[in-house]
Amino acid sequence: MTEIVHMIDSEVFLAFSTYATIVILKMMLVALITSYYRLTRKVFANMEDTALGGSTEDRKKMIRVDPDVERVRRCHQNDLENIIPFVVIGLLYALTGPNLSTALLHFRLFVGSRFLHTVSYLMALPQPSRGLSWIVGMVTTFSMAYRVLTTALFL
Amino acid sequence: MTEIVHMIDSEVFLAFSTYATIVILKMMLVALITSYYRLTRKVFANMEDTALGGSTEDRKKMIRVDPDVERVRRCHQNDLENIIPFVVIGLLYALTGPNLSTALLHFRLFVGSRFLHTVSYLMALPQPSRGLSWIVGMVTTFSMAYRVLTTALFL
Amino acid sequence: MTEIVHMIDSEVFLAFSTYATIVILKMMLVALITSYYRLTRKVFANMEDTALGGSTEDRKKMIRVDPDVERVRRCHQNDLENIIPFVVIGLLYALTGPNLSTALLHFRLFVGSRFLHTVSYLMALPQPSRGLSWIVGMVTTFSMAYRVLTTALFL
Repeated sequence: MTEIVHMIDSEVFLAFSTYATIVILKMMLVALITSYYRLTRKVFANMEDTALGGSTEDRKKMIRVDPDVERVRRCHQNDLENIIPFVVIGLLYALTGPNLSTALLHFRLFVGSRFLHTVSYLMALPQPSRGLSWIVGMVTTFSMAYRVLTTALFL
Repeated sequence: MTEIVHMIDSEVFLAFSTYATIVILKMMLVALITSYYRLTRKVFANMEDTALGGSTEDRKKMIRVDPDVERVRRCHQNDLENIIPFVVIGLLYALTGPNLSTALLHFRLFVGSRFLHTVSYLMALPQPSRGLSWIVGMVTTFSMAYRVLTTALFL
Repeated sequence: MTEIVHMIDSEVFLAFSTYATIVILKMMLVALITSYYRLTRKVFANMEDTALGGSTEDRKKMIRVDPDVERVRRCHQNDLENIIPFVVIGLLYALTGPNLSTALLHFRLFVGSRFLHTVSYLMALPQPSRGLSWIVGMVTTFSMAYRVLTTALFL
């Protein structure tokens, strides 16, 4: 247990820090794409967002559901549902002192799979491209959770 | 302040690590249940997910909203909204060096309440089962936040 | 690298801990507002939540979509999408040992911008109040991510 405190100082922790930041930035990029679609296609969810729309009639038409915006939003939601578990479990995993190359394999697989997932989702690539990239991310996170629970279980 | 650095090495931190991992795994299980429902009931949100569906007409019918899938998704969303605050505040709380038994009480109450919440939600148990389990989780997180702010306030 | 371990003990980390807790509590407050609106306006998403509603016909009418409840929910979702990146990147940023005053500037700007965002959203203030507060939060998080990646890149 005494060695856990040193782990935050390790290359594994630096690697986690780097990959976690990159994958969070990727998630924020999806948020920016949503805004871009909303602004260029004039598709809004709130009446106050349509202020530049001229007449009240024109403005009401902008409050609608657009399939492309919904697609980006589903992609974003899937990011939230998968990247948050990775970040939490990845942080705890990094503190268990795993082998550097094993840890890098986990981090790279996860982050790579989420980039593929985003591309598959936004470009509507044929399945199983999106499904497989989702599964790879899930399995990577489960594998890290397994190590956390077997290394430092305290119930 | 100097003692905070030792906290990451403590049994409280190990306990946090264990319970946080368990509750995140529970949340991922809800994601898997959503996928299971989507695949077995053939209810999809994206056209490219219906590739095994035969004719275009059949495939279009699979793009629909199903009450059971929506229920699991609301459960998942509620998990995100409650488990993320627990994980963030729980981590900071664990670093304030609380009494081990008090910390365990908090972690167990929260994780137990979220398991009850999921069961109540997915089985549509009569209220107030789901409402009460939601409130217990909220109160536990508020209690930890109170300790974080009273122990280490720096504005 | 050896100095990273000391950072968790610093005033910057205490400041992060304080501001992260405050902004997460703010997010939980939005969840409570949703519940308040659902209960006072009798707008529910689940049949079992309408138990006090009398006849089956009355209860079915309570399962509906209310514009005010949807507004609070979009506000909550935007919180999730922005506060989680702040918490993750802010934690890693605090461990890179930034200048205290620079760190405080980042934390205060972000937390302040999110309070403004919530007020703008819930009161439906004219744009660009909500848009600007969203952008300030994003830029603050990007700025911290930039420091994390330039200080401790390990790919």
